[in-house]
Amino acid sequence: MSEPVWSWLDGAPLQADWMLDRGLHYGDGLFETMLLQRGRLRFAALHAARLAEGCKRLHIHCDAAAAIEQAQQLLGDGDAMVKLIVTRGVATERGYAPSGNERARVLLLRYAAPTIDGPGVPDTAIALLQAQLGENPLLAGLKHLNRLELVMARAQLQGSGCFEGILCSSTGNLACGTMSNLFIVDNDRLLTPRVDRCGIAGVMRAVVLREAQQMGLTAQECDMPAAALQQAEQAFITNVRVGIRPITRIGNRALQAGQLTLQLRQRVADLEA
Amino acid sequence: MSEPVWSWLDGAPLQADWMLDRGLHYGDGLFETMLLQRGRLRFAALHAARLAEGCKRLHIHCDAAAAIEQAQQLLGDGDAMVKLIVTRGVATERGYAPSGNERARVLLLRYAAPTIDGPGVPDTAIALLQAQLGENPLLAGLKHLNRLELVMARAQLQGSGCFEGILCSSTGNLACGTMSNLFIVDNDRLLTPRVDRCGIAGVMRAVVLREAQQMGLTAQECDMPAAALQQAEQAFITNVRVGIRPITRIGNRALQAGQLTLQLRQRVADLEA
Repeated sequence: MSEPVWSWLDGAPLQADWMLDRGLHYGDGLFETMLLQRGRLRFAALHAARLAEGCKRLHIHCDAAAAIEQAQQLLGDGDAMVKLIVTRGVATERGYAPSGNERARVLLLRYAAPTIDGPGVPDTAIALLQAQLGENPLLAGLKHLNRLELVMARAQLQGSGCFEGILCSSTGNLACGTMSNLFIVDNDRLLTPRVDRCGIAGVMRAVVLREAQQMGLTAQECDMPAAALQQAEQAFITNVRVGIRPITRIGNRALQAGQLTLQLRQRVADLEA
Repeated sequence: MSEPVWSWLDGAPLQADWMLDRGLHYGDGLFETMLLQRGRLRFAALHAARLAEGCKRLHIHCDAAAAIEQAQQLLGDGDAMVKLIVTRGVATERGYAPSGNERARVLLLRYAAPTIDGPGVPDTAIALLQAQLGENPLLAGLKHLNRLELVMARAQLQGSGCFEGILCSSTGNLACGTMSNLFIVDNDRLLTPRVDRCGIAGVMRAVVLREAQQMGLTAQECDMPAAALQQAEQAFITNVRVGIRPITRIGNRALQAGQLTLQLRQRVADLEA
């Protein structure tokens, strides 16, 4: 029962390990999206830590630090966007339950370098999406391979002219963007949605929380209703590609990039990897 | 930006289409688990209809009926468990948003024949699991490739001696089993959890609802609290592999397979594919 007797791809007979990868069958794995700058993976230690945490929670047997270190060795020089995927491995039995004997597989993809934002504030319009994120504490925060919700959300955004869409949880709290985390600036406090029921605990989110504290700011993870975004005077999104992007428009409402946001943005941009 | 410049698998350079398949990257696809009996796919038309509905909702360009028909041609004779996976295809651009230009890919896997239940009632203990299903109306009911919740749920079940685990939604309603749908018999009514916020609309579930109506029974999809299962006097689970399995034990409580359940079970077993 453990191995298929025959298999086909698009009608042609094919036997290949990847056809049995649990990453493909169930989204049973994790990934990291990283920035390579002058041959160095930016925030490599934070990516390794998040990947390790994900492997631990999903019981995937993979040495995350070694995987990131190997990626660093393989990638070579220059600038690039990098995607590293870890799957639980090839299924050793049919069915959802892992046997525990799978050997994790590591895929590494090097893409062309992204356009990096310059010092000026780029136009960043966002939309509050209808699509919601289901809540599951067992998976919340992880950058796992079950990303159909974000595929659907991103598709909703097409043609809107918006750079990003913000999603709420199925119980109506702000969660995160389709490819970013959200921060709202409330006077001198930074507020960001919790990621313990849905959403992804972004590496740049962690950097911003850390840097804000080092600047003596109050930075809090909290439950935030959608209205908090509608009423925000200053807000920004974060990911490892764009760093901090001040939101300049929500629907028809224009927002200003305030001094605190710009200061934090510069600080993050200046960080050593 | 659309194609990776370099890629590696477990440290070795490799360029292969499957490494860019959106099914692997995002779980962006669907599947059907089917029973082949004496060379015929059982309930082929219902599988094709569900797959077509899934492709429509996810905007995946695939002729579901043709895919099932091709599977029927390729599979050959005999008995088998069959898994058919449809992915949106190889990514044509980086990022969650589909370009709309992807070409769907169809993987077909033929596994050994399962052990089919005989006429006697097999021991079927179930557990009510702690793991919950996130709610997302956009994806609910679909047999999509984002199955990490069920992987985690199935892992929770290991070592319990239970045949199946039942999950609730994140708002506390009964949803479905890790690999089956749930029915509760309430006098002469059949009740089954709705699948419009989470859960999978199983083919055998559809068959049971249809047959029950043809027998003149009331069969309802409804919101059901977990207590409904704890108090049920008669309940069963369904999938295409086992057909109808009367639940004989929930935790420490023994249940009897009642006459209505056994009658329905025989009727479904006797159906022509």
